[in-house]
Order: sequence, then structure tokens, then C-alpha cells
Amino acid sequence: MTFIYKRKPNYYETDQMKIIHHSNYIRWFEEARIAYMDYIDCPFAEIENGDFQIPVTEVSSKYHKPVKFDDTVDIHVTLSYYNGVRIKYSYEVFNQNGELCNSGTSSHCVTTKSGKVLNIKKALPKQHELFSNALSDI
Amino acid sequence: MTFIYKRKPNYYETDQMKIIHHSNYIRWFEEARIAYMDYIDCPFAEIENGDFQIPVTEVSSKYHKPVKFDDTVDIHVTLSYYNGVRIKYSYEVFNQNGELCNSGTSSHCVTTKSGKVLNIKKALPKQHELFSNALSDI
Amino acid sequence: MTFIYKRKPNYYETDQMKIIHHSNYIRWFEEARIAYMDYIDCPFAEIENGDFQIPVTEVSSKYHKPVKFDDTVDIHVTLSYYNGVRIKYSYEVFNQNGELCNSGTSSHCVTTKSGKVLNIKKALPKQHELFSNALSDI
Amino acid sequence: MTFIYKRKPNYYETDQMKIIHHSNYIRWFEEARIAYMDYIDCPFAEIENGDFQIPVTEVSSKYHKPVKFDDTVDIHVTLSYYNGVRIKYSYEVFNQNGELCNSGTSSHCVTTKSGKVLNIKKALPKQHELFSNALSDI
Repeated sequence: MTFIYKRKPNYYETDQMKIIHHSNYIRWFEEARIAYMDYIDCPFAEIENGDFQIPVTEVSSKYHKPVKFDDTVDIHVTLSYYNGVRIKYSYEVFNQNGELCNSGTSSHCVTTKSGKVLNIKKALPKQHELFSNALSDI
Repeated sequence: MTFIYKRKPNYYETDQMKIIHHSNYIRWFEEARIAYMDYIDCPFAEIENGDFQIPVTEVSSKYHKPVKFDDTVDIHVTLSYYNGVRIKYSYEVFNQNGELCNSGTSSHCVTTKSGKVLNIKKALPKQHELFSNALSDI
Repeated sequence: MTFIYKRKPNYYETDQMKIIHHSNYIRWFEEARIAYMDYIDCPFAEIENGDFQIPVTEVSSKYHKPVKFDDTVDIHVTLSYYNGVRIKYSYEVFNQNGELCNSGTSSHCVTTKSGKVLNIKKALPKQHELFSNALSDI
Repeated sequence: MTFIYKRKPNYYETDQMKIIHHSNYIRWFEEARIAYMDYIDCPFAEIENGDFQIPVTEVSSKYHKPVKFDDTVDIHVTLSYYNGVRIKYSYEVFNQNGELCNSGTSSHCVTTKSGKVLNIKKALPKQHELFSNALSDI
């Protein structure tokens, strides 16, 4: 299953090359990931309201074609790996002409507020189920 | 007393007008204010490590002349008002040619972590002393 | 006429006080303003594609109540002043409970790409008409 | 040769996990890279003032340990690959206790303002020399 998150670039995200500054894609990935988690009924806030956090352990981003202020993008999010401890998402950013502008990944784990990595299956059984189902839907 | 905070603009702070995006001055004011508080021996972290916070209650910024990526700026910070509850800072941003590019203000109070506004004189006597001295040094 | 721009806060907009960092409201005002300009058929990109720019000359923001990550906000935008040269917008940010969280303003002019302030009535007659109409609709 | 760029985290870079938000490391890499280029006498602005740009084609970042607001970081920058067309930098972020907090990379090319990838050796012989020397200094 691929979830699509639609987004207008913001003026404050441009840089003086007249393109969206490269750092913003990492932020767009987060927005798309959080919308995806809402969509599979696994809201971020619900996890954080317990004693848990989902920090990022790794990100990557490849820039194929610049996105401009006046473009509109579709960000495709896929949960591409899950093993009960590590979660990995893949992202593809397309402009309004269907051209692939960016592709990237982010990896995550679940920790206590003090930073101890947890077994998601044990600590968050509901979320474990949802991540497992999302993975098998690919 | 006016404290001067020197700063190189960052590339990611430019926008497609090829100038520093206007929202960043509010962030620069915060950087300058935190450096100023360190300077008067009133570090931000020390306040937050107690049960306190110093939220912003008001900001303003006037844009006299754009700052460009390749400029260097001096941000002049003054504690311009303090009455034991409210703190107000004034800022002036000059480029390397001594031209005034921006002037602004920020207002603050001290609250508990749950948001209750406190009398600084009672809650943080050391900081009250430092703010009072800074004010009389103008 | 008041235009309403709906917005979910982003995780990357929070700070360690667990509220939306105050600088982001200035960015939200820009988003809301650009959506408003699209709405009155006065798109930002159309102005910039000519030899024009609409820089910000002044902003202000008052913080009445913090916005949290899990809130949803309605940003009310009004064109509150226009005299053929200066444009001023007013903003009010409400959370999902209808509580006023922030109120602010931004002022603008139109310049050439090299920064010369223009008479909007002469330089951009279509936009002059739209701004004038928007003002009289209040 | 490894260049060290020292940096205080900014309050506005924290998120509600009370750590520096992961997207900021990509921005810190840019700051460190631009300081490094100044250091080897290859300033960014000099390249952009011609008809050239140095866009980012790829970034990656691994999060080993969170950086907090009150930390101070040393960012180690190395030019790790250069073949006359592609430039790659490696970064390591250490906190004040010498602990590795983040490691990452960024890849770049030089293009015309309209986006055509250039042979750096031909288009920017001075910079080609400097990149080549920096590479052999490792």
C-alpha cells in the first residue's frame, strides 16, 4: 500500500537558487509519515502521550529534479521494512507533471523518553499489529 | 549596555528573492537574546532546568534593508523594559557597512511549565537582580 | 471579507517547551497570505514572474495561547489597509476549540527586482483593482 | 585534512522530544561545508556570482546520539570524493564530551543557472585545483 500526501511548497522553503532548499525534503518526509500514520490509525501523538518516542535513526534523500515554489507535489509513502524493532519508510516526491523529483528513506525505532530502545511488539502491541499489516500490504 | 551578537547568514536562510527570508530575523533575535543572557550570567538553560519557562508574548520586526547571504551582521541587543513580571528586548541588525537592516522587539514573561505567569522577583530572585541591573545599565 | 486557511502544525515546528516555536507564526502568516492571494485571483507567482517582488516591510505577532502539535488551527486573514502603495494584512489564529492563540499583522510593498518601491496602481493595475476590492469587502 | 566547524545549537532547532530536530543536521552540514569552502579559499558566493550553482544531489545522515540545546558541537568536514564532476563531503558531529552524535554525507555537482551539469575542471579551473588538493590532503 502506498499512501499519497499532497503538498504545496511554501515560499519560505525556497532558497536563492529559486528552488526548494534541499533540507526541506526531510521535513516533508516527516509530514507525509505523520499523515500516513494517522491514515493507518496509528497517530503519532498517541505514541508520545504514553512514555514513548519514535526518533529518527537514519535519513537519506536523492535529488532528481528541483521542486519550485509554484509546483504541487505528491509524496508517496511506503512502509518498506519492519522487524518488530526497526521501522523504515520510503518516499518518492512527484511534481504536478508526474516527474520524480526526490526519493528518500527514513529509519526509526521506539524508545522510552530517556532513550532506551524498545521491542515494539512488547511495548506497543497495537502499533506492532498496524505496522505488520502495513508491511504485508505492500 | 548594548550587547553585540555577530552572525553570518546561512544559505538555507535565503529565499528566492535572493535575500534572507523575513521570518529568520525572529530566530536571529532569539539567538542574540540567548547569547546576551549568557553574557549577563543568566543562562536560559538554568531557568528551564528549574520548573520555569520564558515564553515569548509578543514580537515585532521592521525591514529597512535586505540582508544577503554574503553579508555579515551585527545584532545589537538591549534589555529595554523590565518591571518584575514583563521583560522586553530591543534589537537592531546592522550589515558590514554599518547600515541598519532591521529593528525589532520581543516581550517575555516567566511561567511554570504548565503556563502560569510568575512574579520573577519572587520566583527567580537571582535573575530578577540581573534583569534589574541590565536595565539600569542602559 | 475574511479568508480562512486551515493548517495542521508540523512536528518539526515544535520546540522543547512542547509548543509551536513562536517564529513559525510568521511563516504561517505567509502561507495564509499566499493562499488568500490565490483565492482573490492575485497569485504571488504571477507578480514575481514579471519584474516585481512583494517584500515584507513589517511584521508583528502577539502570543495569546500556545498551539500544540496535536491541535488544528484556522488562520483568519484580512486585507486591512491598502493605499495604492502599502498593503497590510491582519491575522488571527484560532485552535480547534475556537480559542484565539495568536494575532498579528504584516505590511508589504511592491518593488522592482532591484528594490525600487513602485506605485501599485501604475505598475500592477490588475492587482491594484483586486486589492482595492478586497479592502472594500471588509 | 579535516576541517572543524564549531556550533552552538539554537533553541528554535529543538523539538518536543527536547532534542535537536533531525532535519537540522542537514542544515548544519551546509553551514560546515560553506565554512570549509571559505577555509580552502573557494567561497560559495564566488561560484554563484558567475553563471554557476552547486546543488545538492544526495544527502544522508545517521543519528547516533541526540544533541541537546545546551550542548556544543564540533562538526568535522572532509572532502571525501572528487572526480572533476562529482564532489562528496563527509561529516561527523561530536558533542562537548567527544561523543559521536551524527555522521553523514552530501554529494554535489556544478551546474549552470538553468541546471545543466558541468565539467568542473573546464568550467571552474581554480575550484577544480582546490578540490583536487583538498582530496589529496586526506
